[in-house]
Amino acid sequence: MTKRDPGASYIDSFNAGSPIAGFGVAKVLESANPKFKQGDLVWGRTAWEEYSTITATDSLFKIHNTDVPLSYYTGILGMPGMTAYAGFYEVCSPKKGETVYVSAASGAVGQLVGQFAKLSGCYVVGSAGTKEKVDLLKKKFGFDGAFNYKEEPDLDAALKRFFPEGIDIYFENVGGKMLDAVLPNMRVHGRIAVCGMISQYNLEQPEGVHNLMYLVIKQVRMEGFLVFDYYHLYGKFLEMVLPAIKEGKITYVEDVVEGLESAPAALIGLFAGRNVGKQVVLVSRE
Amino acid sequence: MTKRDPGASYIDSFNAGSPIAGFGVAKVLESANPKFKQGDLVWGRTAWEEYSTITATDSLFKIHNTDVPLSYYTGILGMPGMTAYAGFYEVCSPKKGETVYVSAASGAVGQLVGQFAKLSGCYVVGSAGTKEKVDLLKKKFGFDGAFNYKEEPDLDAALKRFFPEGIDIYFENVGGKMLDAVLPNMRVHGRIAVCGMISQYNLEQPEGVHNLMYLVIKQVRMEGFLVFDYYHLYGKFLEMVLPAIKEGKITYVEDVVEGLESAPAALIGLFAGRNVGKQVVLVSRE
Repeated sequence: MTKRDPGASYIDSFNAGSPIAGFGVAKVLESANPKFKQGDLVWGRTAWEEYSTITATDSLFKIHNTDVPLSYYTGILGMPGMTAYAGFYEVCSPKKGETVYVSAASGAVGQLVGQFAKLSGCYVVGSAGTKEKVDLLKKKFGFDGAFNYKEEPDLDAALKRFFPEGIDIYFENVGGKMLDAVLPNMRVHGRIAVCGMISQYNLEQPEGVHNLMYLVIKQVRMEGFLVFDYYHLYGKFLEMVLPAIKEGKITYVEDVVEGLESAPAALIGLFAGRNVGKQVVLVSRE
Repeated sequence: MTKRDPGASYIDSFNAGSPIAGFGVAKVLESANPKFKQGDLVWGRTAWEEYSTITATDSLFKIHNTDVPLSYYTGILGMPGMTAYAGFYEVCSPKKGETVYVSAASGAVGQLVGQFAKLSGCYVVGSAGTKEKVDLLKKKFGFDGAFNYKEEPDLDAALKRFFPEGIDIYFENVGGKMLDAVLPNMRVHGRIAVCGMISQYNLEQPEGVHNLMYLVIKQVRMEGFLVFDYYHLYGKFLEMVLPAIKEGKITYVEDVVEGLESAPAALIGLFAGRNVGKQVVLVSRE
């Protein structure tokens, strides 16, 4: 039995169809598993509730570092952080000086991919859907460039403006028309990490992507991934990201709503792009 | 200066827009390059003509083994053979017991991919567009199954019939609707080598592909490739494939038309699926 501790149920965009699932931070109240004892702080797959019985303890991680906000374990230090890390470093194999494009770049994953790209010596541009988010990308997260895709009548032209010599790495969160605009702008031997396709989830029929022939023309590798395949790298990830947070080399923005009753509206807001930064639901304070 | 020798100008499907390009076998008549001398047999990028001046000698390979039909160097021992080898072994990393699907399976590349898959202990099914080709796949090339995609009203159902547990490796030659049917049938950690998308080349607007979200759901890697990146493996490839041909472990079928004047019709025939096996144009005998 666990009690939610500084709140933060992760709104799991991969599982929008199963509303009780989510990622959260919790305190162990009672445990029959020797790996966890009363008082331990954990993060992992929980549910949208104040008290949970968790049987799938394989996907619970014990929290050892508490000198950062605990809500970070629903984001930068949890599943979205590992997603950004695995997708960028493991799937995309970035090299210094390469050009990186991130869509949905102000979200929990995108904001980290952009900052990892800068730490790796890459040139990085992100897109988002409001002026506020675009400002955040440039002023807070250190992206080299950012644009509001809703104000670009021609996505291809926008990409050519920011990437006159093409894109080496595309971190794909969006799908549909955006992917179609990106494909002809990829450079030879480019890589596309497919993390999600949020623009497509609520369509009856997903949009067609017409430019896949560029995978051959530009010899591009496009790879879908799920973070669960990479959890064995969690220790290595923390070793990199914890010092970077403490030294201020990585910034993190959360959009916190209070109370479990605010969760459904916050979830719907994700699909309308209303959140700025990682969407967190604060269920209860200690 | 080279003269075409047992003929065989390769009709290069990647370069259908530049009609004078092609792959052929030729004899050197005169050479200013110390790597080649009069009388050498070579294969590589030539042109649709009887005599050629070839300046791009980097893409010419000297022929050392002449105890196989020389026309094989336009196919199984040349660019298409290396394409099948690189795409299957290098891009798809096959493992024994995996399931493999090949579209346009009776073509120069597909027929070899299927046979490589069998040599690697895989289960392999191919599709083609006529009964004659489907028979060839099953009876001559040893595919475990084959179907005529034109006679399948529901491609998804056809794939489920042959792959009830899904597809580990898809060797993509076709694109469009076929790719859309394949994506939901991929297994977790499946690989798609994108060699070509012949169904799309002559469309004004390529068909849209709607099921790319399965790249994430099934954690699939989809990779476009061009054979030129893999030519450094040519020696290794010959070591494997020459003995296999001589021992009868690999079969090869060509569709030979005679005379350079037959080349345009043969090229058009490729797009209508009229060729059976590798399309070769015999320009001249010794």
